[in-house]
Amino acid sequence: MEELIKFNVKTKPSEAGEYPVVIGSGIISKPLIESFAEGRRNFIVTDENVESASLCSEFKAQDDKFIISPAGEISKNIKTVIEIVEAMEAAGFGRDSVITGLGGGTVGDMAGFAAAIFKRGVPVIHIPTSTVAQADSSIGGKTGVDSSISKNAFGAFHHPAAVIIDTHTLKTLPEREYLSGLAESVKHGLIMDSGYFSFIENNTAELIGRGDQALKHLAKENCRIKARVVEEDPCEKNQRRILNYGHTIGHAVETLSNCKLLHGECVSIGIIAAGLIEIELGIGSKQRLERIENLLNKLSLPVRIPDYISKDDILSLIKHDKKAVDGWPRFALIEDIGKAYTKGGQWAHPVNARLVESAVNQLKQQAAR
Amino acid sequence: MEELIKFNVKTKPSEAGEYPVVIGSGIISKPLIESFAEGRRNFIVTDENVESASLCSEFKAQDDKFIISPAGEISKNIKTVIEIVEAMEAAGFGRDSVITGLGGGTVGDMAGFAAAIFKRGVPVIHIPTSTVAQADSSIGGKTGVDSSISKNAFGAFHHPAAVIIDTHTLKTLPEREYLSGLAESVKHGLIMDSGYFSFIENNTAELIGRGDQALKHLAKENCRIKARVVEEDPCEKNQRRILNYGHTIGHAVETLSNCKLLHGECVSIGIIAAGLIEIELGIGSKQRLERIENLLNKLSLPVRIPDYISKDDILSLIKHDKKAVDGWPRFALIEDIGKAYTKGGQWAHPVNARLVESAVNQLKQQAAR
Ligand SMILES: NC(=O)c1ccc[n+]([C@@H]2O[C@H](COP(=O)([O-])OP(=O)(O)OC[C@H]3O[C@@H](n4cnc5c(N)ncnc54)[C@H](O)[C@@H]3O)[C@@H](O)[C@H]2O)c1
Ligand SMILES: NC(=O)c1ccc[n+]([C@@H]2O[C@H](COP(=O)([O-])OP(=O)(O)OC[C@H]3O[C@@H](n4cnc5c(N)ncnc54)[C@H](O)[C@@H]3O)[C@@H](O)[C@H]2O)c1
Ligand SMILES: [Zn+2]
Ligand SMILES: [Zn+2]
Repeated sequence: MEELIKFNVKTKPSEAGEYPVVIGSGIISKPLIESFAEGRRNFIVTDENVESASLCSEFKAQDDKFIISPAGEISKNIKTVIEIVEAMEAAGFGRDSVITGLGGGTVGDMAGFAAAIFKRGVPVIHIPTSTVAQADSSIGGKTGVDSSISKNAFGAFHHPAAVIIDTHTLKTLPEREYLSGLAESVKHGLIMDSGYFSFIENNTAELIGRGDQALKHLAKENCRIKARVVEEDPCEKNQRRILNYGHTIGHAVETLSNCKLLHGECVSIGIIAAGLIEIELGIGSKQRLERIENLLNKLSLPVRIPDYISKDDILSLIKHDKKAVDGWPRFALIEDIGKAYTKGGQWAHPVNARLVESAVNQLKQQAAR
Repeated sequence: MEELIKFNVKTKPSEAGEYPVVIGSGIISKPLIESFAEGRRNFIVTDENVESASLCSEFKAQDDKFIISPAGEISKNIKTVIEIVEAMEAAGFGRDSVITGLGGGTVGDMAGFAAAIFKRGVPVIHIPTSTVAQADSSIGGKTGVDSSISKNAFGAFHHPAAVIIDTHTLKTLPEREYLSGLAESVKHGLIMDSGYFSFIENNTAELIGRGDQALKHLAKENCRIKARVVEEDPCEKNQRRILNYGHTIGHAVETLSNCKLLHGECVSIGIIAAGLIEIELGIGSKQRLERIENLLNKLSLPVRIPDYISKDDILSLIKHDKKAVDGWPRFALIEDIGKAYTKGGQWAHPVNARLVESAVNQLKQQAAR
């Protein structure tokens, strides 16, 4: 037999590190950003809506900036990321650059992914300007953009160098976008912290009015909770799945709504779905679900599946969920407000198809409960 | 003053790990590849030349394979990587995939980068089939592809899950490609191991005849040397720069040759340039340089800058080298055959522009020494 030569090449672990999160109101400034840039040349990625809101008026030079247009999901694809990288090259940016993503979750995902792959990686600074981005996408290091075939087909894990959260930026966010993003805050309370859930319940008026004090507290708690989960499970093997609470059925509704519903609105519906499943499994209660539903109602978030989406379409889509194992996704669930349901060390659970179907059925029938 | 909330998010280190390198002749087989695939669905990336050489005839299914065409540098760009990812999606590949790159350095760089960014990263298995890829690109985790503006504008560090080196594959490699790749082996001897350099000197006939025993020894030593450097310096901060030996002037010549010279041929010229600089700095000798030049000559590798490339163009290009610090690149140098020159812990050194100019001048004048 042919003699085989065999040996191993060691790969060193990356160093442990940490990145700062700074929260305030009206704090965005060139010096603050540059204090995290470590002398690197700074390239701004933003979108047309954020640009016209003039949230960061100190950066005027056109060749140090990429303005995504049109704004939003429609541009979150590999084509735009290529345009960003080539704009940097054309302006003479090299390995010694830093990218600052100023905008909502789509801007952050594109800026983060561009930073992950530009010249084998440069740092990224996130300045999230939407409720979704401040609560969710700016922490955790997940980046991703769509291919012409599917969502987040391209992506990488790439932690930011710093996150700057300025609650003042939220003032210009359109109302529906603003409220939709609050669903992720409700989710954080539900999976991790009943005190935080109560805070949201007790401050709905100030939150809806976009009061700075309430928003700063919200940002701090959201980052603290998301950071805690992500620190435990940086590469999404187990615990991080709890962040998917409300997202399994939520994603299906989002896809089938054909852009009529926003992500957070679908998460709101998905949270109710999870609550119905919990009741069927004996780890939830009607009373608890009513409390959650009341809060979502106060925030003007939807809690029923719209008529134009059929039960069968939802069920067949769930089977194709990218987190599916053996053709059926696991569900993140809670056993109490503020307490994730874990079993055998698992944070996501198989649920009988019949139970899921029953939950979807109830969510379709306005008067079910 | 506005009160700032500030805290840090910890990022966990990635785990230390290792990957196997297997070397033999005629060893490629589906079971061997699958033994490294950990049950993942395997997608092959190769190119038209390698495909027609039938190096891996067991993989026939067209929808589990992407055949890059045209082969070579011209396809090593982000567009091809997008096509690879979308072909995988179209064939239903998901997170649970592994990509196998079967081919030369361009295939490896594309397969590796596609694996780095497909669904936030899947493993890659490298099966290098050129002297360059077996000696150099398959070990080290560097991946990169070109933008429409510059080389390796897009890239990531992504270690392979395994490397399978089958020296038998080299039999079908065109003669000039084959010899060109040997320049990297000579480089490895020069920077790290005088015994290995002597081995190459003493076995030129067997190497030129592509004898399996000599090639297996070559593969083993190349991987051992490259792995040692990369293990010490995974992210290219310092020691890894020694691998750039012969590459600073080499790259400039390569660019200016406009694809007339192959990479290894330019490295050969660059090695002589480094030798001339070493003499001027007092860490080299005419005698040592002659010994190196003799070996490169025996391997039919060029040792002079062709007439159609001007000194001034080379010097102005060197100033734009991507590894430049303060507008002038540092040079990797040796103080003896098998011994890198280090000073103050540095593996790459500033060299007076006048010395570089003098070296380039001598390299232009056939009868200089
Ligand atoms: N990476 C992650 O971990 C993660 C987590 C959650 C969501 N996401 C992604 O985030 C995206 C959704 O985030 P989003 O809702 O922020 O999307 P978005 O970036 O599209 O922002 C929504 C809209 O609000 C506008 N906008 C944003 N900030 C504004 C401001 N301050 N003033 C005026 N207009 C403003 C935007 O231009 C856009 O039109 C999705 O693509 C989702 O996949 C990523
Ligand atoms: N990632 C790294 O660390 C690293 C290191 C060195 C070089 N590289 C890259 O590698 C590339 C050069 O590598 P290369 O010279 O192997 O290029 P290549 O892949 O273009 O191969 C050279 C030619 O040989 C053909 N070929 C390859 N194997 C063959 C075989 N067994 N039989 C017949 N034909 C075969 C190819 O089709 C191609 O036409 C460059 O793009 C360079 O940037 C990367
Ligand atoms: Zn979400
Ligand atoms: Zn090289």
